[in-house]
Amino acid sequence: MKPAVVLLSGGVDSSTAFAIARSQDYVSYALSFAYGQRHSRELDAARRVAAALGAKKHLILTLDLQRIGGSALTADIAVPKGRGLEEIGTGIPVTYVPARNTIFLAHALAWAEVLGAEDVFFGANALDYSGYPDCRPEYVEAFERMANLATKAGVEGKSRFTVHTPLIRMTKAEIIRTGHALGVDFSLTWSCYEPTPDGRACGSCDSCALRRKGFAEAGLADPLPYAA
Amino acid sequence: MKPAVVLLSGGVDSSTAFAIARSQDYVSYALSFAYGQRHSRELDAARRVAAALGAKKHLILTLDLQRIGGSALTADIAVPKGRGLEEIGTGIPVTYVPARNTIFLAHALAWAEVLGAEDVFFGANALDYSGYPDCRPEYVEAFERMANLATKAGVEGKSRFTVHTPLIRMTKAEIIRTGHALGVDFSLTWSCYEPTPDGRACGSCDSCALRRKGFAEAGLADPLPYAA
Repeated sequence: MKPAVVLLSGGVDSSTAFAIARSQDYVSYALSFAYGQRHSRELDAARRVAAALGAKKHLILTLDLQRIGGSALTADIAVPKGRGLEEIGTGIPVTYVPARNTIFLAHALAWAEVLGAEDVFFGANALDYSGYPDCRPEYVEAFERMANLATKAGVEGKSRFTVHTPLIRMTKAEIIRTGHALGVDFSLTWSCYEPTPDGRACGSCDSCALRRKGFAEAGLADPLPYAA
Repeated sequence: MKPAVVLLSGGVDSSTAFAIARSQDYVSYALSFAYGQRHSRELDAARRVAAALGAKKHLILTLDLQRIGGSALTADIAVPKGRGLEEIGTGIPVTYVPARNTIFLAHALAWAEVLGAEDVFFGANALDYSGYPDCRPEYVEAFERMANLATKAGVEGKSRFTVHTPLIRMTKAEIIRTGHALGVDFSLTWSCYEPTPDGRACGSCDSCALRRKGFAEAGLADPLPYAA
């Protein structure tokens, strides 16, 4: 069994990517970040998912992204609500966090190199997604190429990093069906950008809208409580 | 005057890269990291250099790299001493910190995007250097290519990131002469990986060895106190 670093936010996509890594017999090292996001609900979800899917280790690293700001998730900018599905994914929304996935993948690369792992799993999705530039296949390919020049692997030629993005061309419904088939308990996951004070998902941010569409199209019940 | 993010460790190379950015009329936003390195001496140096060279702002971000480990600079691994100059730069030494420059540049990219800056200055050097894979020109080119796909720039096509590495093909002596000519006060800088308890440079780690060789070849006096 080979080791892999799995980026885990605690949402539907990264939890399903984790389950796929497990189904391919990787020993998973889950990696999450306290990066100044609006709430700790998603880190609680990441902890529960890592435990439920049997992570060998779960590292939650702290990042200072609030001091860089520039996003509705890390600065005092309102999270958009009630956008239609046709609007989501056209243009880059204010919830985009500059270079976030590059920072996350760079840490995954560091940990992989220390662990002697050649594989990183990243639940990026470029179909039912929020229009973030760092979720597109061409970005992931460029990261992988850079990663193999950045590290010992690229100099010594003994190993080669692969960034696996098994969801990148799936619809949200396909992701949910896949996760469900692989035993992901979606009641443990979290997607909402801005939960209500009593702990329910808002139901109307882009992330809630995409999740609800996915469950509806997959014909499965979403176990999360929604405010509206 | 255009804004630029300058990676600043407080050493000879990054301080000279900063002075070059200043000489090209960039307004510099200096970026340093408390990443779990062995001593805070280099961050004190970075603060002094940022002030002396007139940084518009200096951000020192905290990173959890000690929890990833894997290097003599971030884990309990001895720093090599007394290696000859012919030995330094052949092979990757234990002071290599996995994916460190990728993590640093990813944060520089994030800050640049928030600032509306298109330029990042990075004092990498691939001639009189420590053999780190993430200092080579092919790595920097791959990072730049990835950066332009990772961000709004790559989607909206209105801007383009450039990672400037003005020192990459200079010898250490050329770097020191250049910095000197541009007004860098090298007494403010710091290079040693493992200073003595009384605050002197050890004189025998790879970083001290390269610095001393550079000053000797440049025909300039190194203002730092050395233990040996």
